[in-house]
Amino acid sequence: MVNLDATLICRLRTERPLVLCLTNGVVRNFTANLLLAAHAVPAMLEDAKEAEEMLQTCANALLVNVGTHSQAQASVMRAAVAAAQAHSLPWVLDPVAVGLLSPRTALCHELIALYPPTLIRGNASEILALAGHSALARGPETTDTSEAALPAAQALAHATGAAVLVTGPTDYATDGSQTHAIIGGHEMMTRVTGVGCAMGALAAALCSVAADNALSAAVACSQLFSLAGAQAASRAPHPGSFATAFLDAVDSCVLAATPTTAQT
Amino acid sequence: MVNLDATLICRLRTERPLVLCLTNGVVRNFTANLLLAAHAVPAMLEDAKEAEEMLQTCANALLVNVGTHSQAQASVMRAAVAAAQAHSLPWVLDPVAVGLLSPRTALCHELIALYPPTLIRGNASEILALAGHSALARGPETTDTSEAALPAAQALAHATGAAVLVTGPTDYATDGSQTHAIIGGHEMMTRVTGVGCAMGALAAALCSVAADNALSAAVACSQLFSLAGAQAASRAPHPGSFATAFLDAVDSCVLAATPTTAQT
Amino acid sequence: MVNLDATLICRLRTERPLVLCLTNGVVRNFTANLLLAAHAVPAMLEDAKEAEEMLQTCANALLVNVGTHSQAQASVMRAAVAAAQAHSLPWVLDPVAVGLLSPRTALCHELIALYPPTLIRGNASEILALAGHSALARGPETTDTSEAALPAAQALAHATGAAVLVTGPTDYATDGSQTHAIIGGHEMMTRVTGVGCAMGALAAALCSVAADNALSAAVACSQLFSLAGAQAASRAPHPGSFATAFLDAVDSCVLAATPTTAQT
Repeated sequence: MVNLDATLICRLRTERPLVLCLTNGVVRNFTANLLLAAHAVPAMLEDAKEAEEMLQTCANALLVNVGTHSQAQASVMRAAVAAAQAHSLPWVLDPVAVGLLSPRTALCHELIALYPPTLIRGNASEILALAGHSALARGPETTDTSEAALPAAQALAHATGAAVLVTGPTDYATDGSQTHAIIGGHEMMTRVTGVGCAMGALAAALCSVAADNALSAAVACSQLFSLAGAQAASRAPHPGSFATAFLDAVDSCVLAATPTTAQT
Repeated sequence: MVNLDATLICRLRTERPLVLCLTNGVVRNFTANLLLAAHAVPAMLEDAKEAEEMLQTCANALLVNVGTHSQAQASVMRAAVAAAQAHSLPWVLDPVAVGLLSPRTALCHELIALYPPTLIRGNASEILALAGHSALARGPETTDTSEAALPAAQALAHATGAAVLVTGPTDYATDGSQTHAIIGGHEMMTRVTGVGCAMGALAAALCSVAADNALSAAVACSQLFSLAGAQAASRAPHPGSFATAFLDAVDSCVLAATPTTAQT
Repeated sequence: MVNLDATLICRLRTERPLVLCLTNGVVRNFTANLLLAAHAVPAMLEDAKEAEEMLQTCANALLVNVGTHSQAQASVMRAAVAAAQAHSLPWVLDPVAVGLLSPRTALCHELIALYPPTLIRGNASEILALAGHSALARGPETTDTSEAALPAAQALAHATGAAVLVTGPTDYATDGSQTHAIIGGHEMMTRVTGVGCAMGALAAALCSVAADNALSAAVACSQLFSLAGAQAASRAPHPGSFATAFLDAVDSCVLAATPTTAQT
């Protein structure tokens, strides 16, 4: 069982950051409910000007998830990443199925070049592909071991300045220099759509309360998911009830967090 | 605890009105499931000609929720509001985050000018903004008291002819002359995405069975949500299971409704 | 209670086919979760080039559901159906509300002419309309008896070469020559949005493991849904908890399947 670094989780609960999520159409509802369960605030929209206005006025962080991008959504993403830069807001890139599909691979490289993300979250094949290795075979549901992508993750962190969170049976969080392994979670987390995508949204919320320490945000994000996933799996052995139990467990874990460490 | 005006709820259960919902991408699934739980029938689409055909042939009411509007969806909304006018169907406007974001604010004013809605449902900051007051700070998840927006709601009702339902810890329903306060519900309703948006869809279903009495539809809508929200919260103290319990409670409340009053 | 033909279900669990789902915006999350509950793998996207790449490299089957098609999505569907033909992959057509709405009716006929589907799943009014009978009155939630559409289903199977699965209180699966009736399920399956749409996705997954026997895929699909629906309804009498229980029951039924017959 992981030990939850409660400092950032307490800040999340107190500050309730608003995360503008430009994410895929499969997981919008679950992502919004995950942020609400974690005591953060979701916002979603489909218009470039509105994205700019929201990032200027009230958003605390931005998530870009390319899972079902279209040309129209790509335009909103470009405007949003530029606005995040203009207003010095953290942004998280979730490169869903990058490497497997060329239009989204090009889009991710374009967004990284426009303004490097604060944090990148992906599974092993996505991180390998984004770091320039050849694409793996299976697509979004691959279960490659995250450890195999660790050198790529460290190289990607060095190249972009982003913290990189590689998720899998064991998660790895790295800034290129320091690397943390987070053990826990449950296989059932791969049997519900959107668990990984929602993790990207939570990572964005945590970046906004982590000052400039994106690595600590990646670690806290992984810890909270590992803890909630294990709790939920102990109560719900099938995927329908697991999804519900997971949201309940996230709420419970965030409510139970107490600031036991003095770290900033 | 609220007393549920069962007359309209019984009509809903018997007549099963079909509501064409042009709503945001975050809440489509929950909105459809809420209407089904309430024994109404949802329909959603993304094509202007299809919207016109459906409103001509089988829809009983229209919901327009601008939460994730795009230029493409705005075109469907314009065609649908014109078709609602042509076929004398009630329509409900849910002005999500209006005031905060200028493109959707302009769109809402355009739609109101095209054909005034039968009912407008929003939280305090949305109603204040739509009535011409300056935008509040926080965005879609603001928890301003609904009471602060009551004069704006009454003015908006007078200006448009719509019934206005301002939702918050206490809901207010007004036609500009009469105003009802509905107490109940539960804070957990703000911890699940789409509860407010689904309320707009239910309001549209109720308008279609309320003859020309949109105020009674607003009151019945708020009463049903308050009752179901309180029931669900007593069984499910966390947001994942609350969402499920809320849909179950709506079904239970609608099934339990008996026409105790003779009002028309 | 139905007897589950376990052969195809066992293959599904072992081979975990990847289904590219071009489906409507209301049911994407539920469809993905249904496939995961059935031990298959969902993929969704919004770009024609990406659809072609995925069907070339890793997808095992394609679902096209026209429930909320737009002109943009129709372009992706055309490219995907052509790619399914190029790579000899099975594809399933779910003609939601065809007959009622003319743009999607034209689109379905266009896709069928481009490359006939392996399997067509619809309710009675959709199958009647697709077979050339005049549209019925009510729209997507109609509860016409599936038996009334049986001659139309058989004619449609003959004309297109597809297996046709007509769903309703009793399901009928036909290839035009042989016809099977599958009894079971529960009325509660009509009180949760997307149950029928998710059935189309499961049918696509089963087609990919059924060699060229699409009729057996249609039968196994209907059997699994009937069994899981009855199990879920015995545990969950309201629609919110039924949706959760249904996903759990699908997982249980797939896990419990043992290859008792030697048929290929």
